[in-house]
Amino acid sequence: MKGKITLSIDTMGSETKLKDICHGLNLSAERNINFNYLIYGDEHEIKKNISNFKSLSKISEIINCDEVVEMTDVPSEVIKNKKKSSMSQAIESVSRKYSDAALSFGNTGALMTFALLIIKTLNNIKRPSIASIWPNLIGDSIILDLGANTKKDSRFLIDNALLGSILASILFRIKKPSIGLLNVGTEDNKGNEEIRTAAGILQNLSLKKIINYYGFVEGNDISIGKTNVVVTDGFSGNIALKTAEGTAKMIQTNLRNAFSSSMMSKLGFALSSQALKSMSDKLDPRVHNCGIFMGLNSLVVKCHGESEYRGVSYAADIIHSLLSNNVNDKIVEYLEKIKDSMDN
Amino acid sequence: MKGKITLSIDTMGSETKLKDICHGLNLSAERNINFNYLIYGDEHEIKKNISNFKSLSKISEIINCDEVVEMTDVPSEVIKNKKKSSMSQAIESVSRKYSDAALSFGNTGALMTFALLIIKTLNNIKRPSIASIWPNLIGDSIILDLGANTKKDSRFLIDNALLGSILASILFRIKKPSIGLLNVGTEDNKGNEEIRTAAGILQNLSLKKIINYYGFVEGNDISIGKTNVVVTDGFSGNIALKTAEGTAKMIQTNLRNAFSSSMMSKLGFALSSQALKSMSDKLDPRVHNCGIFMGLNSLVVKCHGESEYRGVSYAADIIHSLLSNNVNDKIVEYLEKIKDSMDN
Repeated sequence: MKGKITLSIDTMGSETKLKDICHGLNLSAERNINFNYLIYGDEHEIKKNISNFKSLSKISEIINCDEVVEMTDVPSEVIKNKKKSSMSQAIESVSRKYSDAALSFGNTGALMTFALLIIKTLNNIKRPSIASIWPNLIGDSIILDLGANTKKDSRFLIDNALLGSILASILFRIKKPSIGLLNVGTEDNKGNEEIRTAAGILQNLSLKKIINYYGFVEGNDISIGKTNVVVTDGFSGNIALKTAEGTAKMIQTNLRNAFSSSMMSKLGFALSSQALKSMSDKLDPRVHNCGIFMGLNSLVVKCHGESEYRGVSYAADIIHSLLSNNVNDKIVEYLEKIKDSMDN
Repeated sequence: MKGKITLSIDTMGSETKLKDICHGLNLSAERNINFNYLIYGDEHEIKKNISNFKSLSKISEIINCDEVVEMTDVPSEVIKNKKKSSMSQAIESVSRKYSDAALSFGNTGALMTFALLIIKTLNNIKRPSIASIWPNLIGDSIILDLGANTKKDSRFLIDNALLGSILASILFRIKKPSIGLLNVGTEDNKGNEEIRTAAGILQNLSLKKIINYYGFVEGNDISIGKTNVVVTDGFSGNIALKTAEGTAKMIQTNLRNAFSSSMMSKLGFALSSQALKSMSDKLDPRVHNCGIFMGLNSLVVKCHGESEYRGVSYAADIIHSLLSNNVNDKIVEYLEKIKDSMDN
């Protein structure tokens, strides 16, 4: 990767405030000295916000956009109707090599559509995946796919295992991350045909030391952190992710109610609030939630639509780390390796 | 339903203690005066435990069993090798009309195999489902299937909608429970073909007022309680359930750690512990977790393998309520209704 890393940021069409975007980008710029930004959005507003952040001002170029992709826009239509949007232009800038990656907070389906049609998938990757970093009891794990591809297909699961392995090796600095295949049980005969076929091939790749395949894992193993990577199809992955988010929200609401149920428990909350805050930050999707689009010719990341500044800096740091470690070169290299292995 | 309701209980092959089984059954017997039990297991041990519970002693018959289905037994083999087990005998007693339903805490796959081969599915139901009651922010909802059938099949989803509707109408005393179909988004074009076909038919049944179909729901809608019933295939349902359990466990562990992180937070916990206990009970699978096997000629329920007495009484109460309300007659009646409707 060249010395300078440039990121295109789409700032429009979400609930994430420009103030938070600028604050987060500034933090990441201070941590990653070779970072540069192309910021797409309302120039006047961006200028107003950026002036508070010295490091950011120095390394940013602002590109004024009048057109916005809304959350309600239909993905298949934006490609015709929203060609001048901040989202489209941010993606276009990556495809024209003005920048190395794109970050957006907007409409996920629209972003995937632009990415697919403008940046396109890597050779030998049929469909991209959305990967995310999920907190567990002992750290974090990567889970993918979270909804890019809802068809059951064993080759897609194998690609996801490779993509997840590379992501985890870079982001968690592990040489051979362990890979689990999400299933309804751990015995060999569990699940559907596609998943059992994928398991057989992954076992084989594991024997050839291309991958560190652990075996089947179940839904509760995600939070335990049984493997560094959890591979699944986009249908189950999306449902797992949203069910986990819903469960966490429900518990937090119940917790709030419990703490306000009596004077004693209110006092209890006041005394524990510092410790509780750090726990709730760990689970807050505005702080830790980004979908990494994997398998495209360049990196595209979708951050939570209501991110706060820490969420923005977290996403920018991840992108910087992946680009510094030549993530796509590694993917191509691995795809070559499994190609040989699958042919033999 | 006749005046007397008889339940067969398999007490072997799980971590649930006989003491808890007897305590729970006794509580339910006190609440439901026409309940009778056939208790299958180690006669000597059961007698020792049952003597502490007056109501229970009066209405129970103990059947001694020497053979145990272990958690590690392969379901397809128990039907040949474990014919005299407490599990097999409990199921057999239902099929011979000695009792009206069976309750077990043991190996789920083995229990489903015995139920399928001995009790068999209702006419017009191809495959049974496992339904469960799931806590949400405003009460409870029914979710099914949780793993009985992992194939994608639109007819199976429609059957689940009917079975869930009847369950919710009895257990929650709602005339027309709302039914959601679990998907990766709420727009009509989301998901796979099977789910979209099922949605079309459910829409039609809804227009004919046979069912109260709400539409697609997402993973996070389960905890919100958007619909009374959430319908899904067994693969996604199993993953959703286990992911939710894992998430709840992770948060509770983090919470414990947060509370013990300083003197202040320890004191805070002591003051709030009463309120926190009621919240954690609500989420505790040992208290609220049973899989209701639906679509068989008689009711079979699998309770959590480490149930405590409240979990046992909860399961027995559910069975009593379903039997008192002639759950299977209602299912047959609904199946007739949709048969006409599907033919037209």
